[in-house]
Amino acid sequence: MVLVNGVTENRINIADRGLQYGDGLFETIAYRNGVAEFLDAHLTRLLKGCKRLAIPFQDIEILGAELNSVCHQLSDDAVIKIIITRGSGGRGYFAESNIEPSRIISSHPCQTYPESYPRSGIRVRLCKQTLSENSSLAGIKHLNRLEQVLARNEWDDVDIAEGLMFDQDNNVIEGTMSNVFIVKENQLLTPKVDKAGVAGIIRAHICKWAQQNGLVVEEKNLSRDELFTADEIFVCNSVIGIWPVSNIDNRAYAVGPVTKNLQQALAESEK
Amino acid sequence: MVLVNGVTENRINIADRGLQYGDGLFETIAYRNGVAEFLDAHLTRLLKGCKRLAIPFQDIEILGAELNSVCHQLSDDAVIKIIITRGSGGRGYFAESNIEPSRIISSHPCQTYPESYPRSGIRVRLCKQTLSENSSLAGIKHLNRLEQVLARNEWDDVDIAEGLMFDQDNNVIEGTMSNVFIVKENQLLTPKVDKAGVAGIIRAHICKWAQQNGLVVEEKNLSRDELFTADEIFVCNSVIGIWPVSNIDNRAYAVGPVTKNLQQALAESEK
Repeated sequence: MVLVNGVTENRINIADRGLQYGDGLFETIAYRNGVAEFLDAHLTRLLKGCKRLAIPFQDIEILGAELNSVCHQLSDDAVIKIIITRGSGGRGYFAESNIEPSRIISSHPCQTYPESYPRSGIRVRLCKQTLSENSSLAGIKHLNRLEQVLARNEWDDVDIAEGLMFDQDNNVIEGTMSNVFIVKENQLLTPKVDKAGVAGIIRAHICKWAQQNGLVVEEKNLSRDELFTADEIFVCNSVIGIWPVSNIDNRAYAVGPVTKNLQQALAESEK
Repeated sequence: MVLVNGVTENRINIADRGLQYGDGLFETIAYRNGVAEFLDAHLTRLLKGCKRLAIPFQDIEILGAELNSVCHQLSDDAVIKIIITRGSGGRGYFAESNIEPSRIISSHPCQTYPESYPRSGIRVRLCKQTLSENSSLAGIKHLNRLEQVLARNEWDDVDIAEGLMFDQDNNVIEGTMSNVFIVKENQLLTPKVDKAGVAGIIRAHICKWAQQNGLVVEEKNLSRDELFTADEIFVCNSVIGIWPVSNIDNRAYAVGPVTKNLQQALAESEK
């Protein structure tokens, strides 16, 4: 099902700035057991993104009602994607202030992943495609995703579940569709996302849980070497939850106790 | 008029990767006196961009016929925009190889600019929004244009016609919608676009003309200081042609002989 500005419709005007310039934001939400998980966190991040891009989106109540209407039609678990764009109009890159932002809500069947992924871990690769750095776009989930597209299309080996991406200084930042954490001497470390990368909802949830439960957690630049010498590595996002990393190319990693604890905690979290 | 994959239609499926990820390219072509100017150069750059992004677009003859059909309906000068996206489909960022690229051709009335711009020059400002650097995306005219959107929306003073953008090392790269040249001691200098920026059609035309006419032209990193101490400055693109820069903030520049010669040469060029 697709709602465009509240209307059942799967098309959008080609003048929309989302298409013309990638001028917008998105959220990908897991709908499981009748619940749109971490919905408040997703909507909060979406609004924060609008503010960062100066998109004057204020119809959060209308969006909420439309989301409800999409969810009510779902008979099974699903993935819900929200896109907010700056709307149609303006003279080239310039956006007049009277442009109405566009709301697009779509539901999609859950992609099925091997059951072994959360239990035994995944194989990941190191992407050649790097992430550019720009603090004005870092952290938010905007629609300019060519770097992720190019990175994800470096491989078609179905045994590789994710690729890790690095910034211009060779620090690991994130996976193509996930955030990354490492465990080193019982400390939890995750890359800063102030110059590149997305500030993921599950990433934030894990950091908060760790702080509340006496697990040291730090956001810092993580070099390739720190990644390779980690005790445990995992990736996470709103749809997959937490997947341990069992292999980076030919390097093997154990699915360790910290990762397992965090998986357990996430499973038991109120969503 | 809008043609989407050859059909008169002004909407596109929201699943199109152009909207979802900015996964595509565009060209903006001046249609003047019955001629789509520099059409071969635009189509060549478009194909080069497709190759860089591994978009398997091959329907160049169909695109050409569709362009003809759009042009035949025009009774006045216009701007023609072509968008090619990777098409609809794939699993997330991953694009299966059987996806059909989308072709979108739209025509727009020419924007009217003050007659003084090409003659007396324009006021420009220095944008705070920087350009990120990534050689994999530099040079091509892809759809990830948030940096330009943010830069262009830093001002709404109608007396400022363009903003100049800098890379992460404070080198000037381009305008929000134009390339930039400076003249220093009768040499023509323009920023490299191998890490950021678009390799403009008029930029290339000017460089070629200069080489053929004994004017020294060099692509190099240009610092803020080199910009400020230039003898002449101008910006260019396919729609505006060449606009001298008369002011950068409070700094004034003369509309000099090299710029005037290049304007004359462009006006007389076969397009």
